[in-house]
Amino acid sequence: MASRPRILTLTTDFGADGPYVAAMKGIVLGQVPDARLVDVSHAIEPQNVREAAFILGSILDDFPRGTVHLAVVDPGVGTSRRALVVHAREQWFIGPDNGLIPLALGEDADFDARVLVNPAIRRPRVSATFHGRDIFAPVAAYVLKGGSTTELGPRAHDLVRLPPLRPREDGDGLVGEVLFRDRFGNLITNVPASSLVGRPLDSWSVTVGEETVQGVARTYGDHRPGTLIALAGSNGMVEVAVVQGDAAARLGAGPGAPVRLRSQAKGWLEG
Amino acid sequence: MASRPRILTLTTDFGADGPYVAAMKGIVLGQVPDARLVDVSHAIEPQNVREAAFILGSILDDFPRGTVHLAVVDPGVGTSRRALVVHAREQWFIGPDNGLIPLALGEDADFDARVLVNPAIRRPRVSATFHGRDIFAPVAAYVLKGGSTTELGPRAHDLVRLPPLRPREDGDGLVGEVLFRDRFGNLITNVPASSLVGRPLDSWSVTVGEETVQGVARTYGDHRPGTLIALAGSNGMVEVAVVQGDAAARLGAGPGAPVRLRSQAKGWLEG
Amino acid sequence: MASRPRILTLTTDFGADGPYVAAMKGIVLGQVPDARLVDVSHAIEPQNVREAAFILGSILDDFPRGTVHLAVVDPGVGTSRRALVVHAREQWFIGPDNGLIPLALGEDADFDARVLVNPAIRRPRVSATFHGRDIFAPVAAYVLKGGSTTELGPRAHDLVRLPPLRPREDGDGLVGEVLFRDRFGNLITNVPASSLVGRPLDSWSVTVGEETVQGVARTYGDHRPGTLIALAGSNGMVEVAVVQGDAAARLGAGPGAPVRLRSQAKGWLEG
Repeated sequence: MASRPRILTLTTDFGADGPYVAAMKGIVLGQVPDARLVDVSHAIEPQNVREAAFILGSILDDFPRGTVHLAVVDPGVGTSRRALVVHAREQWFIGPDNGLIPLALGEDADFDARVLVNPAIRRPRVSATFHGRDIFAPVAAYVLKGGSTTELGPRAHDLVRLPPLRPREDGDGLVGEVLFRDRFGNLITNVPASSLVGRPLDSWSVTVGEETVQGVARTYGDHRPGTLIALAGSNGMVEVAVVQGDAAARLGAGPGAPVRLRSQAKGWLEG
Repeated sequence: MASRPRILTLTTDFGADGPYVAAMKGIVLGQVPDARLVDVSHAIEPQNVREAAFILGSILDDFPRGTVHLAVVDPGVGTSRRALVVHAREQWFIGPDNGLIPLALGEDADFDARVLVNPAIRRPRVSATFHGRDIFAPVAAYVLKGGSTTELGPRAHDLVRLPPLRPREDGDGLVGEVLFRDRFGNLITNVPASSLVGRPLDSWSVTVGEETVQGVARTYGDHRPGTLIALAGSNGMVEVAVVQGDAAARLGAGPGAPVRLRSQAKGWLEG
Repeated sequence: MASRPRILTLTTDFGADGPYVAAMKGIVLGQVPDARLVDVSHAIEPQNVREAAFILGSILDDFPRGTVHLAVVDPGVGTSRRALVVHAREQWFIGPDNGLIPLALGEDADFDARVLVNPAIRRPRVSATFHGRDIFAPVAAYVLKGGSTTELGPRAHDLVRLPPLRPREDGDGLVGEVLFRDRFGNLITNVPASSLVGRPLDSWSVTVGEETVQGVARTYGDHRPGTLIALAGSNGMVEVAVVQGDAAARLGAGPGAPVRLRSQAKGWLEG
């Protein structure tokens, strides 16, 4: 097996301020002293599996082959929901079977999934409420060390699936949703900017809440402060922003809010 | 001396967002470039030594032998309070002599404590307000490198002690306190779940604020969303939680709030 | 070229909770697996270049020679503002040309600055909104690996400059500003404690908002809880604080608030 870079990312709704994240890191470093630990977010809205999937999905391509991603947003901890390790896109993903991992990978991803049942690769006593420390962290350490995932458990079939992050077509446009509110108040949507390219960017209007923006910009910088704009954001998604301001506050919108895009032009494909 | 894993954890009330934590890390990495730094929390309630002790105490067992823990919650900085390095449970603890370290270790811990007085193992100029950078970080670097603690100063006697984190017995039950509010709003108490085992778990009632929960559950998952429950949490402590909700907001309670537990059954010991 | 410690600090206004910081770290670790990453702050007030400069400037001396500092607070992203690498004080600084880096270094610093134009040392596709990931992180990886900055682009002249962080003289005193509010509510000003030493510390009065403090203390510890004090803080700056309390809340003041210092004594230099 090729050597792995021993990079572990962590995405949870545990909060960075309690003992939970540090406990997982202690377990990993106790077994893999040279692991490189990268916090993605510990401030996922509690039990919001879709937000976690979006954030994790948006950074996968920025990490090298062999990276291990731990993603624990786990409303079902303590129930019979399964625990998984998934190998996909030459990376590993560890977390509960609640739809998060397939959603982060995208609908078309090929992957190999295993159910975590090996009692030798978990803490001797597994608590009812903290599988992050008791199951997922020991499995992460095992995978970082280059362990074979076939030892972890049988192949997992029929993984839990959530509705895709893609928008749906609606007449002459698209209906999507806000996935994430960043700390500037920018609203990142589930509409890929690439889905707009058949028609001129300035022919599109974007509606969130009570307001409609005409045109999709390529950058913040060409507009004056305070302007409400839509733009093709850094994640490749359409974002709604106020230049040097807070779009979420102005629009009263956050994760889950509907977003409607319409074009008044015929696309060049039809034209 | 056995080799040490060069893991340093940091627990402070400095906030993660100012320059203070980074300054300490710069001092440590300048001397120990391969130190592994793990933030436990920098959001301890300002000067709340008990909360810091509880959080640090709850993760000790998750870190390997030889780990160094820096714990700086320091209402007395600039006064004559002593600075300490403590060796206990095959780990090291560095911080002010204000009760935090003994409380994190528990009442029965054996330890060897030293007063930090060696002028060669601190910054040449010690400020009146930032011993984290000027004294504790250089000492942490020295201990990570394998330095002998006998060089740091004389044995410390009569360490400051705080009331223990244990609850007290009260008639047919226990009276404890909330130690920590996690970001879900779960209220973690100072009552070990192990102190309930003499009587059936469903015979216990738990009262916080105006509400009483009947029975202590083993997991979140068996209850419907919105239910107020008490359960044996991942730290081994009784927690009060709302399934997929916020118990602190519902009960109007936080750190320091009293918690009363009563059993209506006779225990098997007396029965 | 001397070996570099491969320490990278990160100072941004991205927030620690979205995907942005992790994306930059993934890019760096993919190229420099043994880089040591230190978060300074990701909670700079959005687009507040002065706050970022102050915080970064206050920790430089705590990091070793060869440290690389990434500082991305970038109101002009997507415009024609230049991107820079600066070598100064035996460290490297990477970020947009908006005044942040010179302000952090101080007015008298000697430095060598380059404009980042080499298309080989950036991501193949540069987005309009996320130069942190697409330009600055690849350049940081290149510098961490020991790359020569002359390859990155031509010498930069006429860097953007902001008004200095120093206070101005005003009659028999000084007028400055609050630069930073720490999480205790302490107000850190731009007045160096060293600028007060010509006169007795107890002869100075410090006014913020509606309140005036008589005397500048050397430490918190000699005053009773609740007392409003001014003191020579750990950054070498005059701070206004409430002992075990919140000065910002009491004074209704934050970053940018004016601070007036006056001395009622003649200094020993004139006396």
